[in-house]
Amino acid sequence: MKAILVIMDGLGGRPTDLGGATCLERAAKPYLDELARQGALGLMDPIAPGIRPGSDTAHLSIFGYDPLKVYTGRGAFEVLGLGLEVRGGDVCFRANFATVERQGGKLVVVDRRAGRLAEGHAFEQALNEISLRDLGVELIFRASTEHRGAVVLRGETLSSAITDTDPHEVGKEVLVCEPLEASEGARRTAAAVNALTRRAHEVLESHPVNARRRAQGQLAANALLLRGAAVMPHLQPLTEDYGIRGACVAGGALYKGVARLAGLEVLAVPGATGDLKTDLRAKAKAALSALARVEFVFVHVKGADNAAHDRNAQSKREFIERVDREFFGELLAGLPPGVHLCVSGDHTTPPAVGEHTADPVPVLFWGPSIRADPARTFGERAAAQGGLGRFSGRLVPQLLGYSDLGPKFGA
Amino acid sequence: MKAILVIMDGLGGRPTDLGGATCLERAAKPYLDELARQGALGLMDPIAPGIRPGSDTAHLSIFGYDPLKVYTGRGAFEVLGLGLEVRGGDVCFRANFATVERQGGKLVVVDRRAGRLAEGHAFEQALNEISLRDLGVELIFRASTEHRGAVVLRGETLSSAITDTDPHEVGKEVLVCEPLEASEGARRTAAAVNALTRRAHEVLESHPVNARRRAQGQLAANALLLRGAAVMPHLQPLTEDYGIRGACVAGGALYKGVARLAGLEVLAVPGATGDLKTDLRAKAKAALSALARVEFVFVHVKGADNAAHDRNAQSKREFIERVDREFFGELLAGLPPGVHLCVSGDHTTPPAVGEHTADPVPVLFWGPSIRADPARTFGERAAAQGGLGRFSGRLVPQLLGYSDLGPKFGA
Repeated sequence: MKAILVIMDGLGGRPTDLGGATCLERAAKPYLDELARQGALGLMDPIAPGIRPGSDTAHLSIFGYDPLKVYTGRGAFEVLGLGLEVRGGDVCFRANFATVERQGGKLVVVDRRAGRLAEGHAFEQALNEISLRDLGVELIFRASTEHRGAVVLRGETLSSAITDTDPHEVGKEVLVCEPLEASEGARRTAAAVNALTRRAHEVLESHPVNARRRAQGQLAANALLLRGAAVMPHLQPLTEDYGIRGACVAGGALYKGVARLAGLEVLAVPGATGDLKTDLRAKAKAALSALARVEFVFVHVKGADNAAHDRNAQSKREFIERVDREFFGELLAGLPPGVHLCVSGDHTTPPAVGEHTADPVPVLFWGPSIRADPARTFGERAAAQGGLGRFSGRLVPQLLGYSDLGPKFGA
Repeated sequence: MKAILVIMDGLGGRPTDLGGATCLERAAKPYLDELARQGALGLMDPIAPGIRPGSDTAHLSIFGYDPLKVYTGRGAFEVLGLGLEVRGGDVCFRANFATVERQGGKLVVVDRRAGRLAEGHAFEQALNEISLRDLGVELIFRASTEHRGAVVLRGETLSSAITDTDPHEVGKEVLVCEPLEASEGARRTAAAVNALTRRAHEVLESHPVNARRRAQGQLAANALLLRGAAVMPHLQPLTEDYGIRGACVAGGALYKGVARLAGLEVLAVPGATGDLKTDLRAKAKAALSALARVEFVFVHVKGADNAAHDRNAQSKREFIERVDREFFGELLAGLPPGVHLCVSGDHTTPPAVGEHTADPVPVLFWGPSIRADPARTFGERAAAQGGLGRFSGRLVPQLLGYSDLGPKFGA
């Protein structure tokens, strides 16, 4: 049997959201309510009771990984969120464009943000052409907003046990990256970082965009400052553990990145923007189309969380209603028989708080294997009385289990 | 938002307590029942299903620590229970006053309990004046009942990997303490124990209380025998993890000790005796007063457990009724808006058993963030139908989570 997991980011709420009810409880959602009547509900602590999850740690846990073991810090996952195709073992950095001037043999920082330039993306190609192959290292650079960017170093047994090059202060020289442990990996990673500092300065110093900035009296973006080295953990792809093919339909880069680490094929879905304007019918069609080829489809819908971060309960409720009407309306109209569905959130985001909270999240399972419970609607309080009880994360293993796709542990 | 956790020690019961109902179910408790109507109930396994908890391990788990990782044995926590201000890294011992006689260069045990003397406290000052500073060690001695006492050694990297000095047999010589591993810490701790044995013997041999005991034909308490070395674990203070201030209102020394390790300020509350006669209104007033200064107050009430250990179900029921009337009556009359409450026990103590059992414990959460459930009363069977489901320990992380005080794990 096949399976679809739909994560509505930030789905959970509090009774204070909308006059004594949560946004989900108050939303008109005939499709989800019908699924609840036919299926069973429960409550999930995304990681464990009382742990306030990030989107990254919550998704790891939902996919069946233990974030307390595999989460190496936000650095690596932030880089995933920028859309880089990071792999296990890669060393990831936050990078700043900076303005430096040469004093003797040293590079001294004039501005840590290169005047908050707008043209970061214009340097991407030149920086990605820098070769560190003499050190056995592959380089990937990605610009983000203003002076911000990310660097990924890829190679055999690199290490994040190294120091920053960013001196975090104007007037100080760009720091030499030093290994923090006696390993060959740390030594080689530090050498690659120092080579990158030199070569990036050469490339940027002579870049035509900087010539234009100087001509216009602006600060040149003539150096990269690196900080916060973090190794991307090696995740055992669940597609290998389960012997299945899987696909991901998502707008946000972080969710695509986690899905890719978990072995899922990330689909390009025009109109899936990862925000409130996303094309929900396009996402449902993409999920149905993928389901013809693969056993498991992960769908991520971000909007409810965006509305809640904006502290807009009405907008969160309306987005949930739109997901019900457009996504589930489209999906259920085309769903072949025998498919299991799981619908939940990755954490609670109450609009009154505007941030993730530790409260448990409602979960809905639907499909032929599910033992139906008396629930008549999909909501937090209905889920608290649901037939699935309360559990921590692991939605994907449970969903694939109901779909008879799970490996046996033991004999 | 602020939060109060109220642990009624040994709260959980069995249907055999009072003619088919538990003491909690049978108790008249209008305040707790009203909190249950407005809040939500659940069942907690203090550590994990089927683990019969001690008060020490249960409180560690309720505070969010993993007792399977941090619990180093009862030795260290028994010393906490004597009221010593033990710190992480201290090496704690059970100590006996004993009677020894010198035979050649050796001390031979005549009585391992020094005639079960009553004057142990009279030796406290003299023993605490013994200096082990030449070995880089600070000594704390505390007498308990009869011949019993406790020793704490404090210093850089001490170790509990050492042997006892107590030969556990009359007619044997006091043992030389030996390191059980090749570490500098074990060597130095053993040296400190051996110096303590010699110096305690000198101090006690010439102590005026022993002169009087000898004159009255009683055995002199002229030696300390040490056994059961245990290191107090370093607990990461939850006040640091959460960036909050916390306070503890308790009578029993063990609970104050665990609270102090967790970073809470332990309040002196006259009348809080840690038994059935405790002044419950004074504890409620102290909790309210603390809440004006700090974000989190932990209240421990011991009596229900005492009554259950005495196998007195009627007394346990009556104590719960008194907690409802006097503690919660006083507390709720003065509670400011926006505070979250959690009420539970640290384990089940059925009067018919007279000991802690592994049965899950009812939990009540109340406050603006809580999704209310249909419960109409606070009791074990109502909790089993409650909207919070079943979970293991971690009451403090959940309570601080509802109060928007929790750190985020991930991004």
